[in-house]
Amino acid sequence: MSYFADLISTVFERRYARAVSSDAQGRTITELSRDLLGARGEVSGSTLAHLILRQYSSGDDQHRQAFFAFMMHDLEIDPVDVVESLKIYKETPSKSSYSEFVRASEPKRQELLRRLNQVPGGTQHLVSMRKDLLRMMRDVPTLEPLDVDFQHLFTSWFNRGFLVLRPIDWSSPAEILEKIIAYEAVHAIDSWDDLRRRLQPSDRRCFGFFHPAIPDDPLIFVEVALTRGIPSSIQTLLADGRDPIEEEEADTAVFYSISNCQDGLAGISFGNSLIKQVVADLSRDLSGLETFVTLSPVPGLKRWLDKETQPLLQSSTAIEVSVAHYLLEAKRADGLPVDPVARFHLGNGASIHAVHADADLSEKGLQQSRGAMVNYIYDLSRITANHEHFVTDKAVAASPEVHALAACHPSKN
Amino acid sequence: MSYFADLISTVFERRYARAVSSDAQGRTITELSRDLLGARGEVSGSTLAHLILRQYSSGDDQHRQAFFAFMMHDLEIDPVDVVESLKIYKETPSKSSYSEFVRASEPKRQELLRRLNQVPGGTQHLVSMRKDLLRMMRDVPTLEPLDVDFQHLFTSWFNRGFLVLRPIDWSSPAEILEKIIAYEAVHAIDSWDDLRRRLQPSDRRCFGFFHPAIPDDPLIFVEVALTRGIPSSIQTLLADGRDPIEEEEADTAVFYSISNCQDGLAGISFGNSLIKQVVADLSRDLSGLETFVTLSPVPGLKRWLDKETQPLLQSSTAIEVSVAHYLLEAKRADGLPVDPVARFHLGNGASIHAVHADADLSEKGLQQSRGAMVNYIYDLSRITANHEHFVTDKAVAASPEVHALAACHPSKN
Amino acid sequence: MSYFADLISTVFERRYARAVSSDAQGRTITELSRDLLGARGEVSGSTLAHLILRQYSSGDDQHRQAFFAFMMHDLEIDPVDVVESLKIYKETPSKSSYSEFVRASEPKRQELLRRLNQVPGGTQHLVSMRKDLLRMMRDVPTLEPLDVDFQHLFTSWFNRGFLVLRPIDWSSPAEILEKIIAYEAVHAIDSWDDLRRRLQPSDRRCFGFFHPAIPDDPLIFVEVALTRGIPSSIQTLLADGRDPIEEEEADTAVFYSISNCQDGLAGISFGNSLIKQVVADLSRDLSGLETFVTLSPVPGLKRWLDKETQPLLQSSTAIEVSVAHYLLEAKRADGLPVDPVARFHLGNGASIHAVHADADLSEKGLQQSRGAMVNYIYDLSRITANHEHFVTDKAVAASPEVHALAACHPSKN
Amino acid sequence: MSYFADLISTVFERRYARAVSSDAQGRTITELSRDLLGARGEVSGSTLAHLILRQYSSGDDQHRQAFFAFMMHDLEIDPVDVVESLKIYKETPSKSSYSEFVRASEPKRQELLRRLNQVPGGTQHLVSMRKDLLRMMRDVPTLEPLDVDFQHLFTSWFNRGFLVLRPIDWSSPAEILEKIIAYEAVHAIDSWDDLRRRLQPSDRRCFGFFHPAIPDDPLIFVEVALTRGIPSSIQTLLADGRDPIEEEEADTAVFYSISNCQDGLAGISFGNSLIKQVVADLSRDLSGLETFVTLSPVPGLKRWLDKETQPLLQSSTAIEVSVAHYLLEAKRADGLPVDPVARFHLGNGASIHAVHADADLSEKGLQQSRGAMVNYIYDLSRITANHEHFVTDKAVAASPEVHALAACHPSKN
Repeated sequence: MSYFADLISTVFERRYARAVSSDAQGRTITELSRDLLGARGEVSGSTLAHLILRQYSSGDDQHRQAFFAFMMHDLEIDPVDVVESLKIYKETPSKSSYSEFVRASEPKRQELLRRLNQVPGGTQHLVSMRKDLLRMMRDVPTLEPLDVDFQHLFTSWFNRGFLVLRPIDWSSPAEILEKIIAYEAVHAIDSWDDLRRRLQPSDRRCFGFFHPAIPDDPLIFVEVALTRGIPSSIQTLLADGRDPIEEEEADTAVFYSISNCQDGLAGISFGNSLIKQVVADLSRDLSGLETFVTLSPVPGLKRWLDKETQPLLQSSTAIEVSVAHYLLEAKRADGLPVDPVARFHLGNGASIHAVHADADLSEKGLQQSRGAMVNYIYDLSRITANHEHFVTDKAVAASPEVHALAACHPSKN
Repeated sequence: MSYFADLISTVFERRYARAVSSDAQGRTITELSRDLLGARGEVSGSTLAHLILRQYSSGDDQHRQAFFAFMMHDLEIDPVDVVESLKIYKETPSKSSYSEFVRASEPKRQELLRRLNQVPGGTQHLVSMRKDLLRMMRDVPTLEPLDVDFQHLFTSWFNRGFLVLRPIDWSSPAEILEKIIAYEAVHAIDSWDDLRRRLQPSDRRCFGFFHPAIPDDPLIFVEVALTRGIPSSIQTLLADGRDPIEEEEADTAVFYSISNCQDGLAGISFGNSLIKQVVADLSRDLSGLETFVTLSPVPGLKRWLDKETQPLLQSSTAIEVSVAHYLLEAKRADGLPVDPVARFHLGNGASIHAVHADADLSEKGLQQSRGAMVNYIYDLSRITANHEHFVTDKAVAASPEVHALAACHPSKN
Repeated sequence: MSYFADLISTVFERRYARAVSSDAQGRTITELSRDLLGARGEVSGSTLAHLILRQYSSGDDQHRQAFFAFMMHDLEIDPVDVVESLKIYKETPSKSSYSEFVRASEPKRQELLRRLNQVPGGTQHLVSMRKDLLRMMRDVPTLEPLDVDFQHLFTSWFNRGFLVLRPIDWSSPAEILEKIIAYEAVHAIDSWDDLRRRLQPSDRRCFGFFHPAIPDDPLIFVEVALTRGIPSSIQTLLADGRDPIEEEEADTAVFYSISNCQDGLAGISFGNSLIKQVVADLSRDLSGLETFVTLSPVPGLKRWLDKETQPLLQSSTAIEVSVAHYLLEAKRADGLPVDPVARFHLGNGASIHAVHADADLSEKGLQQSRGAMVNYIYDLSRITANHEHFVTDKAVAASPEVHALAACHPSKN
Repeated sequence: MSYFADLISTVFERRYARAVSSDAQGRTITELSRDLLGARGEVSGSTLAHLILRQYSSGDDQHRQAFFAFMMHDLEIDPVDVVESLKIYKETPSKSSYSEFVRASEPKRQELLRRLNQVPGGTQHLVSMRKDLLRMMRDVPTLEPLDVDFQHLFTSWFNRGFLVLRPIDWSSPAEILEKIIAYEAVHAIDSWDDLRRRLQPSDRRCFGFFHPAIPDDPLIFVEVALTRGIPSSIQTLLADGRDPIEEEEADTAVFYSISNCQDGLAGISFGNSLIKQVVADLSRDLSGLETFVTLSPVPGLKRWLDKETQPLLQSSTAIEVSVAHYLLEAKRADGLPVDPVARFHLGNGASIHAVHADADLSEKGLQQSRGAMVNYIYDLSRITANHEHFVTDKAVAASPEVHALAACHPSKN
């Protein structure tokens, strides 16, 4: 009951909803969905959408899965209808024949999702719904096509043009900051004091993308350190007692953590836009910045090394050689790098600038990346070319130093 | 040049755009569009979108029409591809086979429009683009299917859940207020002083829907008067020297003007949601309000009377009888009322409460509506039922008084 | 150096300040103060004020005390001048003779403080400065008159009309919330989670007074619980796992903690205005509220009981009798209650509604108040009369129940 | 009645005020003022202040003057008390003896004004009150000392540190913009279109100082044009069809109009701070700006020329010679320039850069200034020195060109 109260914000709406609700008494979620898609939906849409989302939220996994199955199978396209309407459109192209084809070729579940979205707060509920779907799909692969529809709508709704870049700092609302603590995926934030150390000093920045319909929950955020020179260790960068520098003294902006926040938006890509927008904003505000670079983990390294038969080399140099070799040579079946972080930054048009051993001595760093980290550099005059070579020729852009390191790898001899 | 400067807001972006632009030198709008849809679009999308919108804006009608033709014909669906992918999907339903079908059945121009939308300010440009299209379609009907795609995307983007209701008053930005003056479509606003009389008194309100990506331009707005009792004359309601009442004294909220603002959003309906949301907000803030009613023109009356062979009746009563008869009996081929304002409010679930002669003595009022006006009443406990009867049975809800008036019409004897 | 950088916000000002600073090279804080009071102060006032505040801040206690002594003695009134100018004014009253008297009777240190206040951030520095003064005055009573000047100016600057009441909730900036944690003086807040429990539930509120020149630091704040009925135990009110009620269900607003935030504003009273303003705002927003009441400690109880020779009574009733007796009978030399919290609320026009034993079982509660707490009730129709009786006749307003309890006190027999 | 309703914003306060008001029934403004200064004022201060301001506002000039006389005479200092308390303080300096002196030497009317200021909106009422006083003082000079008290309080309340500089542009609220139209004192703004031409183009700026307690009414504002080179004609600068330049192309910022807005703040100086703050902000945002200069009228020229016996010279050169001579040589009894605009800018540390004939061909320009205008230049590295020479030696800073022009004046031969 309190969930519904949350959804409906005014006394008035509550009274109005009660009227419609009594009509809706005893109707199932699928009946309500058909109402929402029908004539009643035009006038009482927002109340019906409330009721559906309420039933969905209060239901258990079994009910939710049944709702997904309903959308998948009952609100599916009719192939005969598609082919017929296509034929008519091609024979006599017109506004109405094309409308018929568009209607026929799009499953009604997309319209249902659009109508559920008209409730205030609806967008966030749909993002949660997809999170459920992604989980259930693993066991029920017949639901997978439904995710295509979610993804199709989300790509349109979470269009870059609708997103807002906002700085996140120590004057941001606590309800946003607690989410930063919860969502930080790369280098965990232990406490509010730890968070403050990431946000408050003069040489720290954080930026997030927000969607206007979900104003108090970031979609993705990046943490930035302003430094003199390019850093080679995350522990040094985040050291507790370190002396901050003045922002004007910095010549380098280091993106040391990028976290996606919404599981329900998996596969909707924001990272590329985020980094470029942050580079643009920082350049404008801090004219001393010359270099934009990441300090990134090598999350696939350990697993890959485990499969290699090379003897375990312990020296720092040996590790750096391994990392360079791994980044440049370890490829998937499709020819792209095995390392997911490398794929992300190289796909954005960045290039591999340097590799560092003993750069992340945390448990997670040692375990995943054998303590190594990588600087990917964003040189805006070259990202378009880099990106195109990467996509077309699978070419990996890297500095001569990284190439030289990789050349020392035993496999080259 | 200054147009482009407007689009690109930061020095940095300008520098970056220059790099891409020189690559783009001499490329046509269609080549740029293919780039945007291709690999380059993933990284340089926002700059390419800038360039395309710039070329579009600086082009004349001939160029614009050519761009529409390109979208219509070159970015059209491939029927073979649709049928093939549908067949495969039906035989072996899976995420990838369904994705293929979705890709094939949606023309690439929709993806192009989505990618153009990622530029800041892109949404507004696309709305203007559709305005051009609607105009050109009259002469070039082969372009009409393209409008189906625009409409499809706009319905998704201008979803009720994304719109923001904002009060518009004398403390609103001048750049918004000048648009209210320009857009007011029902009872023209002559000057800033006239505008102030509609916004500043304690018994006046105005509300508009805004989209977050077009923050300084309303999509639709409604002007409201707070009154004691239901008014029967617009000139009295807007009289220059009238004495405002205190807001707490009002028992009635009168919606006396609703204006759609964006030609490029024709057919995307907001009015229904707007009125209901405003009723909700006013109810919450002013507990004395009991009645929510319009004071509306009868724009189809004159034309309809001209076609009737009845002798011209001059008395007020005769006109009220005519109006009641017209609203209840004059129907289109589809069985819905001839009068567009009646269709709108009845379609929202309102009912005809009263008709008034000598209610709008302005030139336009006399000419279109023979001076008559109508109160449509929004009774929230009945709008769902009214709406469903209207949609299902074409039933027109009206008060006994209006029925009684219509019964006096000569045609009934 | 970084302190100064904080004070001066723009590159420009920094450059400009450098010019003036080089002039100011080697000048002492007292010389700079004389500059600021002289002709140079009219044009370079803000830079001179910066320099003075910088020297003050970077100085140690000895320097600060010397600066206070300078203000006290060198910027003192000249009695001859006062008497002379008064004589002239009385003989020939005029604008200029009165101006001369006003000038003569006000020590120049007040003008110095006003000019220091023109720097952005100056107000906060002056509040800190007074905090230092209050501390040093204990050892150097000759500085005490200087505090009269601070207090005189602060009373004018922190006038109720300039203060802004702002709700403080879980969407407030972290930099404000961390101050709430730090400043809470009555029932300590242990952690951010504890803070969230005070702010986020639907039946909790917090409000603070802010001054526009110190926008991110509250002057005073009050924590409120919305309840059904009047509570008798703070531990129950703040219990960890309790179920919040909906705000509309509440009939009572409980002020359970009021904290002054700025030591440097000691003696500048905001509490009375704050409570009344919060009562007004809550009444407007939540029409179900009927009772406004505190749940307050009895901080003077323990010390007073220690001085009494009565045998130690352990029962709850015995304690309540003691508390009632103490509140109604224990008076200072001036006839006002001994208990400071009682003086505050009774002085605001509240009355003693009830006393509760076993109401605060925290260590502090047991120690100071022997576990007892008091409800003071704010009945707005009676606060003016209550206040006047309290001020004029030292009359303590209390409910019959409290009077009855007090009548049971052994001393009455 | 509606005036009072404006002052009291919430239903709650209205109800509460009614209680106090009935007590206050029939009490005169002077009785209420004594209540406000007494015990009742501590708790019911804000309501009493409301009532006093209401009586004041609804009264006519005779009542207002009586209230001023009451403040002047009944709330006057007691000279015996001043001398006594001074004597005691000097004999036994202490906090309490000094407090007594401060209390005695400040007339109670200052405390009354401070207490009137605690009402929301009170500050604006007091500013209006002083406007009345300034007008009445002309006929009743015995009220003049009262203005010293107003000025004393306003200087403290409108301290630079409390003021907020805000850009005023086409996105500012209409209620502020209509005040800009009303207040523009130098080059009248004819209409909203004319206003838009001053605010909207890329090469125009406007900034105002606001006080937080009067948020929608500027205290002073300055209009700025961004140009290439220093302009010599106001009509050219404001020409209707002119082509705006891009803001980055500008090398000069021209202050072409400064208007004080509040008659009731006469003599409280903001202009100096405003110009310097605007120079600082523009420098930071537009790094291309090198010169900050005014284009100012010569309002005293006509009157001064009329008194001269020189033959009327008509050529442009002759007028420029006259202006240069006038600015450099025409002095008041106190040795400062006759021209008030010259006194203002030279007093701020600016210097006379150039004089132009045929620079303001408006009726007002021709009439007051014989069509001439002046550029005063703000060179921040020299304003402190300029100001000090001006104050100490009455030295007028001017360029060699202006000196050369003045040397051509017939009186020099």
